[in-house]
Amino acid sequence: MTALTYTPIGVFRTPYLTTQAIPKTLGQAPTAEATIEIDPAYADGLLDIDRFSHLIVIFAFHQSTAKPLRVYPPGQTRERGVFATRSPHRPNAIGILTVELKKREGTRLFVKGVDVLDGTPVLDIKPYLAHFDCRPEATLGWVEETRRG
Amino acid sequence: MTALTYTPIGVFRTPYLTTQAIPKTLGQAPTAEATIEIDPAYADGLLDIDRFSHLIVIFAFHQSTAKPLRVYPPGQTRERGVFATRSPHRPNAIGILTVELKKREGTRLFVKGVDVLDGTPVLDIKPYLAHFDCRPEATLGWVEETRRG
Repeated sequence: MTALTYTPIGVFRTPYLTTQAIPKTLGQAPTAEATIEIDPAYADGLLDIDRFSHLIVIFAFHQSTAKPLRVYPPGQTRERGVFATRSPHRPNAIGILTVELKKREGTRLFVKGVDVLDGTPVLDIKPYLAHFDCRPEATLGWVEETRRG
Repeated sequence: MTALTYTPIGVFRTPYLTTQAIPKTLGQAPTAEATIEIDPAYADGLLDIDRFSHLIVIFAFHQSTAKPLRVYPPGQTRERGVFATRSPHRPNAIGILTVELKKREGTRLFVKGVDVLDGTPVLDIKPYLAHFDCRPEATLGWVEETRRG
């Protein structure tokens, strides 16, 4: 299929300078604070964004090069299909994060709930809309097993 | 910033052959059923995916060419910054959908909750994990005004 090319609109500034520094906790949302620096060329696209409490950030796992189809999730002894995991190592190394927007200063967004490397390229930001994005009834699949034991 | 290139892993088969056919309803999740046909080369990546009730699909708005920084959301008379909307017309025309997984047959995923064109390229699929992805407390920003009437 035809390849698709995207240019980052900004970058994450986070406390994590190495992948080893990132806490890997199955079953818990991250809580670290970070800033997203949007390229000033896109400043106009941020109008009204500060009225939302939560954002979805689409980003590139830029240090990921391996593209395994099966992976061992952190702390797990059983392989899973990569599309049944949130592994950064995947055919298209794209990630998503739902973050809390604390404040905006111009093209800098101060957010909470981040577990990505400092310097992570940001591809897109969307408002979190609970009627689309919140599914409290969702099952946890294989992750449920790990929580039981 | 450096451009990033991705190759689709599959394609949506949906009831919507034209953008005009897609219902545009602010404030409601879509309910249409569709299939996602994953390229058989990635079949191994689907192991255990059917144990999740909901998936997040990352896809390309492949018919979008305009990249405005401000847009008028459907039925609205006021412009918003594109990053404060879910418009398909955005600097990087990437979309996300949370869908319900009804069943899997090999590399075909039968899903519910779709509002994208037939033929939409799929970039990635992730399990929906409520502890990451569900934020019932999220505010609706400017969308709230439109719901009030």
